[in-house]
Amino acid sequence: MLNFVHDIPTRYYFGEGQISNLAGELSRFGKNVLLTYGGGSVKRSGLYDTIMDILNGHDFKVTELNGIDPNPRITSVREGVRLCKENGVDVILAVGGGSTIDCSKAIACGFYWEGDDLWDMIRNPGRNMKALPLVDILTLSATGSEFDPFGVISNMETNEKLGVPLCYPSVSICDPTYTFSVPAYHTAAGSADIMSHIIEGYFSRTDDSDLADGMCETILKSVMKNCPVALKDPSNYSARANLMHNSSIACSHITEYGKQGTMWPCHGMEHELSAFYDITHGVGLAILTPRWMRFILAKDPTVTGRFARFARNVIGLEGNDDAALAKEGIDALEAYFASTGIPMKLSELGIGEEHFSEMADHANKINHLELAYVPLTNEDIVEIFRASL
Amino acid sequence: MLNFVHDIPTRYYFGEGQISNLAGELSRFGKNVLLTYGGGSVKRSGLYDTIMDILNGHDFKVTELNGIDPNPRITSVREGVRLCKENGVDVILAVGGGSTIDCSKAIACGFYWEGDDLWDMIRNPGRNMKALPLVDILTLSATGSEFDPFGVISNMETNEKLGVPLCYPSVSICDPTYTFSVPAYHTAAGSADIMSHIIEGYFSRTDDSDLADGMCETILKSVMKNCPVALKDPSNYSARANLMHNSSIACSHITEYGKQGTMWPCHGMEHELSAFYDITHGVGLAILTPRWMRFILAKDPTVTGRFARFARNVIGLEGNDDAALAKEGIDALEAYFASTGIPMKLSELGIGEEHFSEMADHANKINHLELAYVPLTNEDIVEIFRASL
Repeated sequence: MLNFVHDIPTRYYFGEGQISNLAGELSRFGKNVLLTYGGGSVKRSGLYDTIMDILNGHDFKVTELNGIDPNPRITSVREGVRLCKENGVDVILAVGGGSTIDCSKAIACGFYWEGDDLWDMIRNPGRNMKALPLVDILTLSATGSEFDPFGVISNMETNEKLGVPLCYPSVSICDPTYTFSVPAYHTAAGSADIMSHIIEGYFSRTDDSDLADGMCETILKSVMKNCPVALKDPSNYSARANLMHNSSIACSHITEYGKQGTMWPCHGMEHELSAFYDITHGVGLAILTPRWMRFILAKDPTVTGRFARFARNVIGLEGNDDAALAKEGIDALEAYFASTGIPMKLSELGIGEEHFSEMADHANKINHLELAYVPLTNEDIVEIFRASL
Repeated sequence: MLNFVHDIPTRYYFGEGQISNLAGELSRFGKNVLLTYGGGSVKRSGLYDTIMDILNGHDFKVTELNGIDPNPRITSVREGVRLCKENGVDVILAVGGGSTIDCSKAIACGFYWEGDDLWDMIRNPGRNMKALPLVDILTLSATGSEFDPFGVISNMETNEKLGVPLCYPSVSICDPTYTFSVPAYHTAAGSADIMSHIIEGYFSRTDDSDLADGMCETILKSVMKNCPVALKDPSNYSARANLMHNSSIACSHITEYGKQGTMWPCHGMEHELSAFYDITHGVGLAILTPRWMRFILAKDPTVTGRFARFARNVIGLEGNDDAALAKEGIDALEAYFASTGIPMKLSELGIGEEHFSEMADHANKINHLELAYVPLTNEDIVEIFRASL
């Protein structure tokens, strides 16, 4: 078991009706709010009106930044920072999923960034950056941005998508009922994202960090149980609640405490796909993960035991033949992803192999996948991409 | 799944050598330190000298409060508050197990308490009490005080032992090597305490809080695996590390998020035993827990399913007969406790039934065990005590 530091300052309100704490929490920071959100779903669901009633009823001054894209852009960050400076904003209120929260974290840090170009901040973020306080209201169970310091920002001019540490939210309000209206496709993709956050750390060289591994197995089993329930019955509170709780913990790194780092290879590879093709992050992860698993299992048989453990403790397979179990576990995971309605081939998303070499080169340069659980060369990454076509 | 709020501000350093962060962390709060510890073990192990070298090397002014008892007394709290006031203390540094940390929390809050008698603070603690900053260095894996807001303080004049919310540590330094010298008896008792913190919340009426239940099962299995290893091989880092990590999470209430509260009946009953007889807390819990389990299983058959789950997922038993499994799981737990060398009868500790009625009355009055997982009357509690003789 390796050393770690736990230091998560986010106050996390979970459950139906927790928005009752919104006005009080915002008031801790001031009365001048930048409200950020994405497309129209927040308005269609009525959540926007609920929030504005609260903000107006408590005399907050509100500036809005809307239209934040999935795979949020550095252009939105620049616009948000400009709005905060022009309006003397005290606190950012992000309403949405990971994209809106990630973008808002970059705005929060960008407010105090002293460099010329905010893309430089994303390329070289500081340590413990000073940031405006950020309160979020979560509407999608997926990225875990509500309980981690990370943000993923895209630059469409340079075809770059970078995940970097920015700042923790001060407060996260997580009400599962706000995810009742999430369509099936994004429920499945978000669930795949949750699972990927766990899988990236679960496959590590450290075998004796019991609590971390047990949490990983619990979350994977819980997502595989509850995602299908939510797909069939979108307003099932218990299923939506478990997915939301799982999502918040899955990216917090709590499930990797004491374990050797793995460089999160599937995320490194997927960020290239969505940087080039703007695909849904969770879908890219679901496609890549089983292919990555098969590739590293073939490349390095010393990982067989861990894959057999995955097959037994997560998938529920039984047997004494570790090598066979390892493969069956991967097949079962792929079949599960497919059963949730996710496209399971890159070609279904219109992706061909024309940029594979360039993407592999960049993935490795940024993410140092030569240090991954099983080290990956550029050629290895191209092979995993090809197997995903 | 029920609502909850997660709000734990403690910065938690885990692993060998993390004491390298001590001077920097203390300096955040000031240079004037109250150093608290218990008996001689901290000196015998050399940890005291290590700490004093660091404090002297960084020009801290140190006032000492030593001799804090297991089941720490309100008299120590009074003395600590006096020392803090007389010496203008900025920060408390607690070195020890739960007793020293609990006592230090009460001192930290007591420093700002405006009432006449500090025992009134323990009887009626405020909400979000103002407190001096508290840094701790953990030397025993047991109570979880290093990652929770609770303190248990005893008043030997009134035969009262009360567990109350006081304040979170600002910083906890948890180095498993500091527990290498813990004797077998206290390793076993501390491990029983960890397990009890989990069991108290695991047996709840809420069945759909997946992550909480999975964490409970993981921690129970991990303790039952690692405690025997630590008993045989006291310097086994992996075993000590898992016990320490488990201890910190087990009392944090994270393992009860989303679940209906249970009033922690075994703790309520045990606090009476140690208030009257000053026994080791974890030993009292190990004795009471299987008797409590058998009693409530007999009283309310609706809990059979949860006991069968415990037998399957924690003990590893198999079978389809829930009623039989439920009983076998309890027997296995009792046998496990006995195997760690803990006395498993109250009579072995010199406890007779002379105070059972008085203790049951007080346990129920303080802890409202009529609201427990299975409600307990005073007569029920006496019966559980009798079964533990």
